[in-house]
Amino acid sequence: MNSVTQRQSATSRPKALINDLFLRACKREDVERTPAWFMRQAGRYLPEYRQVREKVDFLTLCKTPDLAAEVTVQPVDILGVDAAIIFSDILVVPEAMGMELIVEEGKGGPRFPAPIRSREEIDKLVVPDPYSKLKFVLEAIKAARQNLNNKVPLIGFAGSPWTLAAYMVEGKGSKDFRFAKELAFSSPKDAHTLLDKLASAVAAYLNAQIEAGAQAIQIFDTWGGLLGQEEFEEFSLRYLKQVLSLLRTNGAPVITFCKDCGQSLEKIADTGADVVGLDWKTDIRKARDMVGSYVALQGNLDPVMLFATPERIEKAVRTILEKFGKGNGHVFNLGHGILPDTPVENVKVFINAVKKFSVQYHV
Amino acid sequence: MNSVTQRQSATSRPKALINDLFLRACKREDVERTPAWFMRQAGRYLPEYRQVREKVDFLTLCKTPDLAAEVTVQPVDILGVDAAIIFSDILVVPEAMGMELIVEEGKGGPRFPAPIRSREEIDKLVVPDPYSKLKFVLEAIKAARQNLNNKVPLIGFAGSPWTLAAYMVEGKGSKDFRFAKELAFSSPKDAHTLLDKLASAVAAYLNAQIEAGAQAIQIFDTWGGLLGQEEFEEFSLRYLKQVLSLLRTNGAPVITFCKDCGQSLEKIADTGADVVGLDWKTDIRKARDMVGSYVALQGNLDPVMLFATPERIEKAVRTILEKFGKGNGHVFNLGHGILPDTPVENVKVFINAVKKFSVQYHV
Repeated sequence: MNSVTQRQSATSRPKALINDLFLRACKREDVERTPAWFMRQAGRYLPEYRQVREKVDFLTLCKTPDLAAEVTVQPVDILGVDAAIIFSDILVVPEAMGMELIVEEGKGGPRFPAPIRSREEIDKLVVPDPYSKLKFVLEAIKAARQNLNNKVPLIGFAGSPWTLAAYMVEGKGSKDFRFAKELAFSSPKDAHTLLDKLASAVAAYLNAQIEAGAQAIQIFDTWGGLLGQEEFEEFSLRYLKQVLSLLRTNGAPVITFCKDCGQSLEKIADTGADVVGLDWKTDIRKARDMVGSYVALQGNLDPVMLFATPERIEKAVRTILEKFGKGNGHVFNLGHGILPDTPVENVKVFINAVKKFSVQYHV
Repeated sequence: MNSVTQRQSATSRPKALINDLFLRACKREDVERTPAWFMRQAGRYLPEYRQVREKVDFLTLCKTPDLAAEVTVQPVDILGVDAAIIFSDILVVPEAMGMELIVEEGKGGPRFPAPIRSREEIDKLVVPDPYSKLKFVLEAIKAARQNLNNKVPLIGFAGSPWTLAAYMVEGKGSKDFRFAKELAFSSPKDAHTLLDKLASAVAAYLNAQIEAGAQAIQIFDTWGGLLGQEEFEEFSLRYLKQVLSLLRTNGAPVITFCKDCGQSLEKIADTGADVVGLDWKTDIRKARDMVGSYVALQGNLDPVMLFATPERIEKAVRTILEKFGKGNGHVFNLGHGILPDTPVENVKVFINAVKKFSVQYHV
């Protein structure tokens, strides 16, 4: 993406964008301070989100553009984050491919009652046209852009092919994803067919999001870290690259976030993404030393730190800023999604600490 | 441990031990083939184990030396592994320190109904005398040694201070161990008091196991991988070292197994343990390059691989042998405990493949 984004960066930032710190940091350009947003920032920890959710269930919220746009903008207004991320779920893609998806909150997360376990079932999956099957996301993006009114950029997202495949084959979240890995280990040809199909679906979906107004893209590889390093390259990274090669970013930066994959950092940074997201277990100083000359880094406060005292939260923010050090190419974030019980007051401490203490690293 | 074990290795191996491949590999001495055992090898995947468990519940099995010894020896007789590991649970130590422990199978694993959340509760915990409070484990070790009749060595074990603290503070297994980490983050002084107490308890317990007949020791740090690298050093590694410094090994090799800590490999190898256990996400070739000149390595087949076809299992075993390469200092193991539903036939394929294909790396 790097060459493309450099060429087109002038067109990708509407002059009207009031706060473009996030986009500049993604491209390792000068910023006055480090921008911050965080994963699952539109979510259950916010009373304002829970109020909306009282009216509709989770999937209905995803599929009602006005409501999805409303909760997307909440953390910008309430917390002052430097980017919004469209409210949605990575599993709407497998649903659009033909799988029944059930989300019953408090019952162990989303699940597919008929998981994919055979070649026949893989062949039945369709690569969906995002403009019909996932139109609700595109509409939500348009509505969110309108609500944001150019305050901050809007991030679109999708799950990585491997992470989607893991859920589709397993049928639900799992500690070991034994069925998904069994498919990869024992029937690699079938696994590759499924992953190839998913790469096409994800790329088309992300391209449609960009066209609808997403100003950056994040790809979540939540389950890449379940694989050994060689299997990670074969079943996850290869299809991340395939997605990236199919993107028409029009200057929108691309972020990859592979959880628990710190040992493959250099390989992840070589995919061509602009930004590499780090979980909290990777040392951001070591990461910058390794790959910071050619990608920006995003992260990486431990989400559990937001349960600590305000002083401890500030100290942890300062530690990460100090580890990254002076200069450009850092987007502050959590190292994973915020936990639902996190106190909002602590989240404010976190965001304000980034804003306050990062200035000295950008003089 | 290294200097001690070298000095005393002659006394640590009774001449009568028929198969001492495991002990030799732990000390990076010559072996004819790579030895193999695996974590949770005495467990639910074995029909013979389930037969014993029909009669008694899990904790009763742990506390009935004859039965614990019986299931300890089963995988040696049935699968031909090169070491036995005493059947027990790491949570018997917190129980001996005064906590109520409940294990109801199929109900989300073991739990402490009254978790440790205050300084007062930490102060109430006692460092137990293993000869009274954990006598059942010592008796089981003696009985297992008798049953083993010097066929293969017997491994004793304990949880690391951090891993025990994580369970004790959280009260049960958890995805994020928010309460345990909150204690470490917000009340580090209290966390250190608890961890220091646990280090004393674990060291005394392991010394008693060695005295009772354990011929090697493994310390499980199952939850070290939940921490960022600096926090891992402060709250986990420091107390692993403290335990090691208090051990009177009498020549018994010491294995550390820190799950999801591959990014801290060099620090783990510097603790003074003889063997470093690897999960399946660390490349054993890279690990050997980094630390193989001063520690042996144990691992690291993905436990999910045992659901694959026999051919795939054999291929995976050969890949790991080839990655480690020729020479000494490799104990074959899984990268984490075996999963309860694993087919026994596949486990046999795995063990036999190690035995068959490793010979060529030891000529």
